[in-house]
Amino acid sequence: MERVQPPRLYENLKRLLRRRAFNHTRNLLAKTHPADVAALFRLFDESSQQKIFELVEGTERKAEVLSYLDRDLVANVLTVHDDKKLIDIMTQVSSDDLADILAAIPDDLRQKILKGIADKDQEEVEDLMAYGEKSAGGIMSLDFLALRQETTAEEAINRIRQRSQDVEMAFYIYVVNDREELVGVLSLRELVTCPPRTSIDTLMQSNVVSVNTEDDQEYVAGLVSRYDILAIPVVDSTKKLVGIITVDDVIDVIREEATEDMLKMAGAGDHMVDAMSVGTNFRRRLPWLLITWIGQAIAALIISRYEPTLRAVVPLAAFIPMIVGMAGNVGTQSTTIVVRALATGRVDYSQIWSTLGRELLVGTLLGFLYGALLGAFGFLRYMNSPTINAIALGGVISSSLLAAMLLAVVFSTLLPFILQRLRLDPAVVTAPFVTTVTDVLGILLYLSVATAFLL
Amino acid sequence: MERVQPPRLYENLKRLLRRRAFNHTRNLLAKTHPADVAALFRLFDESSQQKIFELVEGTERKAEVLSYLDRDLVANVLTVHDDKKLIDIMTQVSSDDLADILAAIPDDLRQKILKGIADKDQEEVEDLMAYGEKSAGGIMSLDFLALRQETTAEEAINRIRQRSQDVEMAFYIYVVNDREELVGVLSLRELVTCPPRTSIDTLMQSNVVSVNTEDDQEYVAGLVSRYDILAIPVVDSTKKLVGIITVDDVIDVIREEATEDMLKMAGAGDHMVDAMSVGTNFRRRLPWLLITWIGQAIAALIISRYEPTLRAVVPLAAFIPMIVGMAGNVGTQSTTIVVRALATGRVDYSQIWSTLGRELLVGTLLGFLYGALLGAFGFLRYMNSPTINAIALGGVISSSLLAAMLLAVVFSTLLPFILQRLRLDPAVVTAPFVTTVTDVLGILLYLSVATAFLL
Repeated sequence: MERVQPPRLYENLKRLLRRRAFNHTRNLLAKTHPADVAALFRLFDESSQQKIFELVEGTERKAEVLSYLDRDLVANVLTVHDDKKLIDIMTQVSSDDLADILAAIPDDLRQKILKGIADKDQEEVEDLMAYGEKSAGGIMSLDFLALRQETTAEEAINRIRQRSQDVEMAFYIYVVNDREELVGVLSLRELVTCPPRTSIDTLMQSNVVSVNTEDDQEYVAGLVSRYDILAIPVVDSTKKLVGIITVDDVIDVIREEATEDMLKMAGAGDHMVDAMSVGTNFRRRLPWLLITWIGQAIAALIISRYEPTLRAVVPLAAFIPMIVGMAGNVGTQSTTIVVRALATGRVDYSQIWSTLGRELLVGTLLGFLYGALLGAFGFLRYMNSPTINAIALGGVISSSLLAAMLLAVVFSTLLPFILQRLRLDPAVVTAPFVTTVTDVLGILLYLSVATAFLL
Repeated sequence: MERVQPPRLYENLKRLLRRRAFNHTRNLLAKTHPADVAALFRLFDESSQQKIFELVEGTERKAEVLSYLDRDLVANVLTVHDDKKLIDIMTQVSSDDLADILAAIPDDLRQKILKGIADKDQEEVEDLMAYGEKSAGGIMSLDFLALRQETTAEEAINRIRQRSQDVEMAFYIYVVNDREELVGVLSLRELVTCPPRTSIDTLMQSNVVSVNTEDDQEYVAGLVSRYDILAIPVVDSTKKLVGIITVDDVIDVIREEATEDMLKMAGAGDHMVDAMSVGTNFRRRLPWLLITWIGQAIAALIISRYEPTLRAVVPLAAFIPMIVGMAGNVGTQSTTIVVRALATGRVDYSQIWSTLGRELLVGTLLGFLYGALLGAFGFLRYMNSPTINAIALGGVISSSLLAAMLLAVVFSTLLPFILQRLRLDPAVVTAPFVTTVTDVLGILLYLSVATAFLL
């Protein structure tokens, strides 16, 4: 993903702030899209962040900037204003963004804001905060348009006129029955282009794709992305329509989930925010490195058990990194392909054996090629050595490389499928984990083959 | 990303096809969303794919299924019908999908379809095919609504009534001047809720975010995702409005780019389609493995240069995989964090030194911890050995592990920044590449320290 930033905005803002040219700064910020203003904050220290937020003019615009701002930075700037001003700004933030913001700030500040805003807003926000952070309820917005079945097109358009201020994206109009259950959907375009007296239940499409408040955000993103829809309605356990999730929030989910999968696969935690702070970064990476440390300690014990072999044929040691390195790399490739294919729905469990077959075939081709190359390399390096049987050495290292690569392919192809089947996240089959297991197996294989054929 | 698939659809369809219950199959397919039908094709062999496509009823529905179908599967099913029927179906496909489909099918079939469709469609499709596959022009749709500045709200609504059939997503109405240059945008909602005689240039927002036909799709996705918009207009070099890119296509771009980054980082090519075929999969993985093979061969030559050291202190060989493995893993973690942070715009080049500082601090903590653990492990393993100085061995392996890990962190943190600065894709700093370089450096370091202190 390429970086999108208006050119020189950061440099200009930095220069203006350093010169304390606050009027110019105010003008620059007023001309800049609130999303771009929000994206700048991370590049400044906390006191500059506060100054920038202070110089954004108008409570509405401040609220917009806050909606776009990364949640972990919000608390830094909320102390800029007195309580009354703070409440004024917060009242302008939509309830779903407000719920997210409140979840990310200290307790006392949250209580203060909840007490300050109108009772209706408070109730909405507290309802939203009760849902799991990564559930449909947790990411939904309450600004949707629902009309009763018996409404006519004309009445509907009048309703839209009245409410157009507070409804974020009114391109779909949802239709509910007298128990507020979702029964249909129609687009604003259909409403505009039909005779005014038409009842909306004759226009609506009754087969609506919807999700439950408890559904996982990944499932929601999968539906929106598959069906190419702009918003998906959210219903509670009684089928009552309670919110919508718009496609712009789905984009955030998709990017976030991709980031998490990448970090997990590298054993580097699952959150970019954590990865950016020394303390949590250290704690997230610690356990995965411990697993690989233990794996390597086992490998070291195996090697030391084969000391007599290594003492007799010292050059064997030179090829240990090659055997484990190539096996680890081919395993990482297979695991990445399988994890991503499972994540994007290109393969599922029913294709475990055909996928293994294909990976094994590729692994065999690669293993023969690089095994033969290694055998030739070993032979050429030691053909003039008086103490080494260069042909046998070449045979041992080439066949060990092939076998270790095949072992790595089998292990790293099957594991993600099995984890998916067990309803665990295949992305935790991290590259470090796969390389560690293949290291141990590869070394065992290599040194036992060497002992059998070279001693 | 979780798999989204109506439950048991695949099993039901397979059973019906096996029983040759074609009427039931037809009914099942008619009840299923075309996106779900399209997603099923990959799970069947080519002759079943053809049968399923034949059993989808109606040219319009067949066209919908084709629009959702993965491009590499389209050619399999197009031979099902005679030329006339084929042209009928293709005429129903929107021009942007048709351009994509034609780019993915054999030459003769493409020519036949281009000749068969109406001249106007042919021209549109050929224009679209002239743009780069990953450019804004290559992914844009031509179904947008543009009106002249002087149009009134009432006239605008009438125009929408007339055109509502062929305009995919008319929630934004674009405003152009008499040279067809883009001058503004307004939403359908604004149009509906204003007095009928209002001229649309008084309603429109004139500060429109737009892209050029030549802009990269990643840049487009970045804008749409940053500004939370549903569609972005595309202009040509003369500022003329030529198309729009809707958010559903942006979602595809974001998922595709995440997949590509993951595959690139594992050195497994950059396309999931390739990863799924044995031949291209083999060819994509070959070069990266060659680089790592050469790296490991250099490592083998380095180790064989230190044969006297290894002969004198054979246990040193046991810790080679540990030194290179831990350094490689910590390097993979750093590289993944940095590549992803650059890709999502969380850091940029100005933060190279602060990022390095943070990674080095984490690396030092991890290196001291696991270095000390390794030193203790080595000491305990060899403390009773009559020939080995266990204290010196412990010191050598622990300090080598720390140094190798720090080296890995520095290299794998800086490289993505440097590649980004050189306008290369940081994601090509693949895990195999990072581990290979750290392997070579780590081994050199370890064996030279060991030679200095243990001989």
